[in-house]
Amino acid sequence: MEQKTRDNSKDNLSDKIYVETNQFYYDRPFVLESEAVLDHLEITYETYGKLNSDRSNAILICHALTGDAHVAGYHRGEDKPGWWDGMVGPGKAFDTNKYFVICSNVIGSCRGSIGPSSINPKTGREYGLEFPVVTIKDMVRAQKILIDHLKIDRIKCVAGGSMGGMQALQWAVSYPQMIDSCIPIATTYRHSAQQIAFDEVGRQAIMADPNWNNGEYYGKEIPARGLAVARMIGHITYMSDKSMEKKFGRNLRKKEYGYHFKQEFEVENYLQYRGSSFIHRFDANSYLYLTKAMDYFDLQRGKPLAEAFSHIKNVKFLVIAFSSDWLYPPYQSKEIVKALKMNGLTVTYCEISSDYGHDAFLIEFNEESKLIKHFLEKV
Amino acid sequence: MEQKTRDNSKDNLSDKIYVETNQFYYDRPFVLESEAVLDHLEITYETYGKLNSDRSNAILICHALTGDAHVAGYHRGEDKPGWWDGMVGPGKAFDTNKYFVICSNVIGSCRGSIGPSSINPKTGREYGLEFPVVTIKDMVRAQKILIDHLKIDRIKCVAGGSMGGMQALQWAVSYPQMIDSCIPIATTYRHSAQQIAFDEVGRQAIMADPNWNNGEYYGKEIPARGLAVARMIGHITYMSDKSMEKKFGRNLRKKEYGYHFKQEFEVENYLQYRGSSFIHRFDANSYLYLTKAMDYFDLQRGKPLAEAFSHIKNVKFLVIAFSSDWLYPPYQSKEIVKALKMNGLTVTYCEISSDYGHDAFLIEFNEESKLIKHFLEKV
Repeated sequence: MEQKTRDNSKDNLSDKIYVETNQFYYDRPFVLESEAVLDHLEITYETYGKLNSDRSNAILICHALTGDAHVAGYHRGEDKPGWWDGMVGPGKAFDTNKYFVICSNVIGSCRGSIGPSSINPKTGREYGLEFPVVTIKDMVRAQKILIDHLKIDRIKCVAGGSMGGMQALQWAVSYPQMIDSCIPIATTYRHSAQQIAFDEVGRQAIMADPNWNNGEYYGKEIPARGLAVARMIGHITYMSDKSMEKKFGRNLRKKEYGYHFKQEFEVENYLQYRGSSFIHRFDANSYLYLTKAMDYFDLQRGKPLAEAFSHIKNVKFLVIAFSSDWLYPPYQSKEIVKALKMNGLTVTYCEISSDYGHDAFLIEFNEESKLIKHFLEKV
Repeated sequence: MEQKTRDNSKDNLSDKIYVETNQFYYDRPFVLESEAVLDHLEITYETYGKLNSDRSNAILICHALTGDAHVAGYHRGEDKPGWWDGMVGPGKAFDTNKYFVICSNVIGSCRGSIGPSSINPKTGREYGLEFPVVTIKDMVRAQKILIDHLKIDRIKCVAGGSMGGMQALQWAVSYPQMIDSCIPIATTYRHSAQQIAFDEVGRQAIMADPNWNNGEYYGKEIPARGLAVARMIGHITYMSDKSMEKKFGRNLRKKEYGYHFKQEFEVENYLQYRGSSFIHRFDANSYLYLTKAMDYFDLQRGKPLAEAFSHIKNVKFLVIAFSSDWLYPPYQSKEIVKALKMNGLTVTYCEISSDYGHDAFLIEFNEESKLIKHFLEKV
C-alpha cells in the first residue's frame, strides 16, 4: 500500500494559521455498497493541532455537500480561510491546542479525493459516469481507512453539519466501538421526499444542459448554466424566508423596475453570483454523485429508527438543530434524539434559535461553540 | 371596437356541464404600467350561470400562474373539467344557480389571451420577447375592459388563489367602487425575496436552455427541458414537506436502489411527469412573463401597507390562508388582514388547517366552500 502523506507545516505569521493539504493513496480495491469496485482510493485530508502521545485526542470533522478537507486555517497565497474556520482553531469550539482535528474530502467529490472527475487508470480519461455511485456509508468507510492509515484507534469525536452530520451518524452506526462521541448538526437520519425532490431538480438542471453530454464534458465546455441553476436552487434552501427578506427584501439594483428579464432585484443578483462563482470550483458530475449519496441515505430502511442504533454502546451524542432550518428541520433531529434515547444512550439535544436557516451551522458560531466546547470537555 | 363574443351553450348531458370559450378582441391601444403599448388586446374568457336582469350577480374568478379561463365544467371532447370545478357550479361555493361567474385568461399567458406566443400584427410573427412586460395591475385593467364590454357595472365578488389572489387584491385597490367583496386566497400583498428567488431560478432554468434562443423558438424546438425544470421547482413549492412525505415518502419504483441517475424514487418520477406534461400545455415565454408580473407585485411600495387600502370603502373581504402553505405563508395573509382592519374595513380571516401546502386552495374544497358560501350570502 503506497501511502503518500506529508506533514503539515503550520506557521503563525500575521495571526494566520497556514495549513497544507495531504494526499493519501490507497492502492487496494474498495468494494462499494452497490457492489461496484473502485480499484484504488485517493483521499485528500488536512490536519490541525497535534496528535498526543497516546493518540487519543483525534477529532474527525465531516464536510457538507460542496465542502472539502480545508476546514480551517489558510492555504498559502489564499485570502479566505477554511469553511469552518470560526469553529476549528486554537481556543475555538474544536480547540486545536487540545485536539488533533482531521478533515478529509469525501469520495465522489471533486476537491482532491477520488471522484468522477478523477482519472480512471483503466482508460487514462476522467471517469465521468463510469465512476460508481457512492453512498454515505462508502464515504465513511473510506474515512475509516484513512484513520487506520493514520494509526488512530479511537476517535474522540466525529462531527459535521448537513451531509457531514449524515457521515457523523453513519460513523456511530458503522464503527460505534471506535468513537467516544458524535455531533450531528442540522442533519437528518434519512432524506425525506422533499429533500430528494430538491436534489433531483438540481440534477435535472445539470443533465438538461447539453454541455453535460452524459457526463463527458471534461476538456470541453462544462455544463455551466445547468450547474449554476442547481446551485441557485440549493442556495434558496440554505437560507430562511426571513434571512432572505432581511438581507435582500425587494431591494432593486437600480431605482425603478426595468421591465425586462435581466437580474434587477438584489436577490436575483445574489443567486446569479452564487451560481456563476460555483461553477469554477465544483464539478457538475460530483454534484450529481453527492446529492445522490444523500438521497440514498436512510439509517432506518423501513424499520423503527431505534433499531438502527441498538448496537451502539458508550457513544455520547450532541444533536444540534437550528430553528429556521427548513431544509433539515429540527423535527428530523428530534427523531434522532428520540431513537438514541430509546436505546438508553446519553444524548444532549439543542435547538439553536436562528434566522439563518440551514446556513446557520456555518454562521451561528457563538452558541454552537459553547455547546460543543462544554460537550467535548465532558467526553 | 370589434367585439367577438359568443354565447355559452350549456347542456346537462350525463351530469356534465359543458362550457364554451369566448374570445374578446379589443382593438384600441392599451398602455401598460411600464408605459409600453399593446396596440390591441385579445382576451379569452368563460362564463357560467346567468346574468340577472339588474346585472348585479356577477362574480369574477382570477386564475393562478398556469391556470386559464376554463375554471369549471367541461369542454366538449375533454375528460377533465376546469381547474376549480369543485368550487364553481350549481350548488357549489360559487353557485352558478345564483351567480354569473366570469373567468378570463390573463394577458401575458398562452391560454387564449394575448401574450408572447401571440402573433404580433406588426411583424406577422410571434411576439416573443418583443411582447412588453405586463404587471398584475395590467392584467386587472384588461379584465376591467372585458367587464365593461359585458356591460357589468358592479361585481359582487372578485376571488382568486395565489396569483389570482393578487389580482383580486389589485381589483380592490384599482376599482374599489366597482366591487362588493373580495376573496384573496393563499396569496400575498407583495412578493418576498424568497418568492422572487424561486421564480428567478425557474426563469434561469428556461433561459439556460439553448432552445430558448432569447425567446425565439416558435416553430422550432421548444426549450422543453428548461421549462420542465422550472415546473419541477414550482411543484416542490406547491406541496408541503408533509404532503410529499405522505404521498411519496422514500418509495422506490423498483425494490432496490438502482445506483444510477435515472428516476427511481417515486417523488422523482412524479416531478419528471409533472415537468414533461407541462411543456405540452404551457409556453416558456409566458412562464417568464407571468412569474415576472408576480415578482413586480407590491401593493406596499415602501409605504405602510394600510395606506394602499386607505381609499377603499364598503368592500367586504374574506382572506383565506392554509396552515402548511410555505410558498404563500399565512403570515402574509395576516398582514393583509391587519392593514385592511386598520382602515376599518370588514374583514374575515380564516386559516384552514391542511397538510397540502399551497396546493390546498385547489384541493381543500370542503371548508373553503363553506366559508365562501356563507360569506357571499352576507354580501
